[in-house]
Amino acid sequence: MIFSINRNIFLEEINKCNRIIDYKSLTPSITGILLEIEVDKISLISTNSSISIKSTIFSGTNDLIIKETGSILIKGKYFLEILRRMEDEIINISSVENNIVSLSGEKSEFSLNTLDFNDFPLIGFREKGTVIKINNIELKKSLNQTIIAVNEWNQKIVLAGLNFAINNGMFYITGTDGFRVSRKRILIEEQIPEKFETNIPYKSILEIIKLLPEKGECKIVIIDSFATFIINDTLFQTTILEGQFPNVNAVFPTDFNTTIYVNNKKFFKLISRADIRSEDNSSTVVNFILDNDRIFIKSNINQIGSFEEEFREFELKGIDEQNICFNSKYLIDSLKTFETKNIELNFIDSKKPIVISSDEDLNLNQIILPMFSN
Amino acid sequence: MIFSINRNIFLEEINKCNRIIDYKSLTPSITGILLEIEVDKISLISTNSSISIKSTIFSGTNDLIIKETGSILIKGKYFLEILRRMEDEIINISSVENNIVSLSGEKSEFSLNTLDFNDFPLIGFREKGTVIKINNIELKKSLNQTIIAVNEWNQKIVLAGLNFAINNGMFYITGTDGFRVSRKRILIEEQIPEKFETNIPYKSILEIIKLLPEKGECKIVIIDSFATFIINDTLFQTTILEGQFPNVNAVFPTDFNTTIYVNNKKFFKLISRADIRSEDNSSTVVNFILDNDRIFIKSNINQIGSFEEEFREFELKGIDEQNICFNSKYLIDSLKTFETKNIELNFIDSKKPIVISSDEDLNLNQIILPMFSN
Repeated sequence: MIFSINRNIFLEEINKCNRIIDYKSLTPSITGILLEIEVDKISLISTNSSISIKSTIFSGTNDLIIKETGSILIKGKYFLEILRRMEDEIINISSVENNIVSLSGEKSEFSLNTLDFNDFPLIGFREKGTVIKINNIELKKSLNQTIIAVNEWNQKIVLAGLNFAINNGMFYITGTDGFRVSRKRILIEEQIPEKFETNIPYKSILEIIKLLPEKGECKIVIIDSFATFIINDTLFQTTILEGQFPNVNAVFPTDFNTTIYVNNKKFFKLISRADIRSEDNSSTVVNFILDNDRIFIKSNINQIGSFEEEFREFELKGIDEQNICFNSKYLIDSLKTFETKNIELNFIDSKKPIVISSDEDLNLNQIILPMFSN
Repeated sequence: MIFSINRNIFLEEINKCNRIIDYKSLTPSITGILLEIEVDKISLISTNSSISIKSTIFSGTNDLIIKETGSILIKGKYFLEILRRMEDEIINISSVENNIVSLSGEKSEFSLNTLDFNDFPLIGFREKGTVIKINNIELKKSLNQTIIAVNEWNQKIVLAGLNFAINNGMFYITGTDGFRVSRKRILIEEQIPEKFETNIPYKSILEIIKLLPEKGECKIVIIDSFATFIINDTLFQTTILEGQFPNVNAVFPTDFNTTIYVNNKKFFKLISRADIRSEDNSSTVVNFILDNDRIFIKSNINQIGSFEEEFREFELKGIDEQNICFNSKYLIDSLKTFETKNIELNFIDSKKPIVISSDEDLNLNQIILPMFSN
């Protein structure tokens, strides 16, 4: 096989494939990236136990010129290192006898050992099934806003990822660890399928966030036990989490006794001050006391000390007395997901969940269960 | 004790003291920072087994107002965390009964546990002895340029740091690990003492680099087994390395057979391409071949592959044939220390040290011993 290609593009595609590789795998061939060179395109394929990725570059684009077809299985991380240090705009890649691939520019030449491509597993990429199309930026933002509530190591497997589902004709992405819920509603412009539900593992979500570009849209295909994210010419296929995701709509309160309107940044800084972590890095319990026109934020840090601050810069609707305790980390995580100037904190009482929302972004909701203070 | 001070300044001074603290110490008091509040100044003191630091802020500067004298031993890292999150320009600090210190701003108040200041060791700071004064920027740059040749874990103790010495009326800073030498000559404007020699440990050098500001000069005092760096109102006292530092002047060759003049950045990138590390991260042997008007750079990377590049962009003085092998890391480290556009590589033969210099900075020399290739 012989081809030449734009160095930066090739570097980028190898980087995509390399990221998911599990270098701790005991099967050497799985740590490679398969290059399949056909007459009109090249494909780069890599895989781990739950994710597979296939990226295609077509002849005539990105300076790709194919002179000879074939397959090789390369060691991605050395390719990456070398491609980063080369300075040529176009590079030439050709296989040489004895499992060696040559990577050359105008003046320099690297000869690298390859793996045996016959050992690489055959991967079936599923491109047909129930489909939903989402704007890339919207999807990226939504994943970042909801992944915060997910515990990757949740013992209840179905919670160790994000739920994608249609509910009452609306598309929702939801994450929960049992103590908080992050829920985002996404407006789909094209017709949405009647039924679409899947649970994507935490690690796959992190990779998808990295893959999503600033432009265009992503096609999500679900079929069998797989979900495939099709982003331009890249297929990202992940296994899904089996199980029934809890019906979080049931826990969403709708009637509140008290609503506090605050500047997001100011309130975030206030809670950050209260969140001084102790040696064992355990989370801090913050006590929120609303008393008429003042909020008191108090925290006690085991063996270190205590904090107290008075806060008056808020508007209030409803009952002017609340005394509630919560995990400062959960509140901080939630506040960070709002890109809005102001937020609302909605309370019922000291034993009911707090709902954080903003009238500047009606599609995002963060719910936090209170803690019982002693 | 009660005082108020500019928050940013106090944060900065606590940060200086906190950096050297060894939190793994089994003596809790040693992990604290001693605040001594006198009528006209406050001092912050911290220590570890080899370095002690004392920083003084005078009343009337940096918004410091002292209302009551006294001493406390604070837990620096929590102070740092809290000071960073506060928003007040001026903060108030006062000791409260039961070993508690209060740190307050306009609306917020932190109460923090303290350690018992009676347990903190008495540290004698030496400010008199043989003195040399060096411009701060010059010193910082020189330390960065010479520390590269030092192996912190060198079995020969005296080599595990930098040598500061007067030699033939000139002041030199020298580092060596036995395979390479970094030597910097510093011009001292004031009269230099007749004899001045000391060896400063690696870790102390790293801390001094962080302490040195962009302006002013540093006074280095040596006496007994200590060196004190006086930087404005901060005293940095370190133990020194005992032993006789080797006379590196003896290994400095002066007559060369070949000198190559190259653009530093281009040559650096060339050597970087040859320096692909293998799995075990062992360093790469690079073969430099000069053949008339061409240089060939070759490297072999164990189990990975090989590299070869031809390079013609150089000027030459002397013999036009050389074939020499060296450790790529040493050459890369050395090239990075030159801020000059061009550098010179001086060769004798394949068994003699290479000297790297630049006619744009005659005070810096880097020497690398060659490797014997098989």
